[in-house]
Amino acid sequence: MTDDAGKCWIDFDNTRGSVLLGHGDPQTAEAVARAATGSLGAATGWSPLLDTVVSRLLELCGGEVVGLFRTGTSAVRAAVLAVRETVGAPLVLSAGYHGYDPMWSPAKAPFEPNADGVVDFFFDLDALADLLRDRERVAAVVISPDHMHLSPRWYERARALLAAAAVPLIVDEVKVGLRYGPGLSTAHLLDADVWVAAKGIANGFPAAAVGGSRTLLKPLREISYTSFFEPTVLAAAERTLARVATGLPQRIVRETGDRFVEHARAALDGASLPVEVAGDGTFFQFVPATREVKKALYKAAEEEGLLFYRGDNQAVSAAFGPDVLADAQTRFTRVCDRLAPFAGAGPVGEDARYLAAWSVMDGLREAERDARQTREWVERLLDD
Amino acid sequence: MTDDAGKCWIDFDNTRGSVLLGHGDPQTAEAVARAATGSLGAATGWSPLLDTVVSRLLELCGGEVVGLFRTGTSAVRAAVLAVRETVGAPLVLSAGYHGYDPMWSPAKAPFEPNADGVVDFFFDLDALADLLRDRERVAAVVISPDHMHLSPRWYERARALLAAAAVPLIVDEVKVGLRYGPGLSTAHLLDADVWVAAKGIANGFPAAAVGGSRTLLKPLREISYTSFFEPTVLAAAERTLARVATGLPQRIVRETGDRFVEHARAALDGASLPVEVAGDGTFFQFVPATREVKKALYKAAEEEGLLFYRGDNQAVSAAFGPDVLADAQTRFTRVCDRLAPFAGAGPVGEDARYLAAWSVMDGLREAERDARQTREWVERLLDD
Repeated sequence: MTDDAGKCWIDFDNTRGSVLLGHGDPQTAEAVARAATGSLGAATGWSPLLDTVVSRLLELCGGEVVGLFRTGTSAVRAAVLAVRETVGAPLVLSAGYHGYDPMWSPAKAPFEPNADGVVDFFFDLDALADLLRDRERVAAVVISPDHMHLSPRWYERARALLAAAAVPLIVDEVKVGLRYGPGLSTAHLLDADVWVAAKGIANGFPAAAVGGSRTLLKPLREISYTSFFEPTVLAAAERTLARVATGLPQRIVRETGDRFVEHARAALDGASLPVEVAGDGTFFQFVPATREVKKALYKAAEEEGLLFYRGDNQAVSAAFGPDVLADAQTRFTRVCDRLAPFAGAGPVGEDARYLAAWSVMDGLREAERDARQTREWVERLLDD
Repeated sequence: MTDDAGKCWIDFDNTRGSVLLGHGDPQTAEAVARAATGSLGAATGWSPLLDTVVSRLLELCGGEVVGLFRTGTSAVRAAVLAVRETVGAPLVLSAGYHGYDPMWSPAKAPFEPNADGVVDFFFDLDALADLLRDRERVAAVVISPDHMHLSPRWYERARALLAAAAVPLIVDEVKVGLRYGPGLSTAHLLDADVWVAAKGIANGFPAAAVGGSRTLLKPLREISYTSFFEPTVLAAAERTLARVATGLPQRIVRETGDRFVEHARAALDGASLPVEVAGDGTFFQFVPATREVKKALYKAAEEEGLLFYRGDNQAVSAAFGPDVLADAQTRFTRVCDRLAPFAGAGPVGEDARYLAAWSVMDGLREAERDARQTREWVERLLDD
């Protein structure tokens, strides 16, 4: 990308991970241009394009029904309120970021319900087990999966807990955005009743979807909004989902990302810099030892024209060819040169690892902890 | 518009009034096609296009600050919750439709707060005056203006009531969609602190905006969503707002619509049909005497290829040239022919007029009423 001043950037933000095929992807652009003329349908009503998008989503993510929205925030709110209305219990147990809506505001005290009946368990499964003792008051559990700071073991235990409690599970896969493969990242890890997807379904165009159980999602039948049938967004989603369904863009991203991460780890190590890299080529995250190192890292990256999503997950796109990868690696080596004053200043401690995980998942990384430690970490990080 | 079966339709729905320039408008399509290639900015971050859209909105609708959203529903919810948070009082007094969000669900009893603290006064100013006696508990009043069933006198009295109570006013102009002129339809009728617009700002593309007082809207600073910078939507908004600002598309719509309405009234009258037409060329609405007539009217229109927004406001677009108008008039004459069995079955009564108004504005039309009658109408129409 080139900015107004003529400076060239390599984008690892990619619209917070929602651009998988690359900005201005030619196939998407061509379909959108055609749709904008009105030749693929009008925004007043139904078109075959809508049927295709809906079918693709059901094939990819499963479920009996699907509903479309414009943002992840709207989709998750609608899904959670629909399930709560159907179940008829007041509480929703939540882990992870679910959008900007005030319904997700922190409670007065951790592990208590907020004004909207949402209780955050911050990915701590002991806390979840505790909250599930009051089973009859719980309408659903909603989890935004993370695969940088939670292992398959975490999901195994979560799955067993939810099965024992027989509580509906909503997976909010907005953040992971179909990047891990052609379908939900938790398809083989959890038994979701309802899913939400947004990033990655239309390569950055404003589309989001809710799918799953017809019974649980029944209240969504009442929802309608004016731009529902808008054809350019449907065209972008149709073209994107066709490619996402092959798994090819995700494989390219993973391989290219892996090579960048490998290079970054080696460069940081070679320069004895106190920065770890969590995750893998699909999504990775810098874990700087201190705030000072963090600030310097992003400043140096900016100077070298590497556009990172500050503190959060970094994501390459399938448009990163070998030349872009090589350029990015060279730039990152120069970033490490700029960080020379921090050489040998390590190590990266548990504090830094907890903070990095919190930045990306709004909760606690998987680690051995007792209840007291859990409470201490949550209080410290909420304060932060 | 031509459907899959080859049938040709004339669209009076126009995406519920949000398509002002016509479907597939060439200028918009050209800008969107360019933006889709990435040449006008990337969805990762800021672009000059965003600055232009924001400036145009502030020029058109006024206010110190503006925020962008994807749907009217999201924008109104965000605006209302922001003002309530700033003011710090629990209740919101509301009239009109504000989107699909469950926060607008009916209360257990009319004129009582619902679970979200929203009290509907159904456009009845005596009811509003009553509710404003509990002034300290009221954070804001939110009104979706209508100009088919409310006269300038209604607005004059509303304005005086709100001024006396000194309560913040949010005008939800989503439904009227910048169709009445280059700016808010209530610019000279009410003193709004905050406005919301959506339909009409991007010719059917998914854009919405909130603007107004910097102080009242301060909590919106915390809001962000992934597709915020998506360039095709910004391009559609930029092109649309440039033309909306001239007032020309609105004048074309008004004049063409007026000629259609004049023809429709004469044709209905000539055929002695029990259907009134409320409103004017900008927005009009059929007021059939009975449910049976209503059903027959929309069936006949469907058969003649006139696509009406059932029960709601009808809106032509600026793409209705003289040939389309003439065609639509001829088709409407044939609709009246089909309705011949209802000739002389009138008149249209108060029931029908209240029902039509309720369908379009989710509240009571302006009329002489005492408190008992108001309650009776509300209960009857809520039941409906």
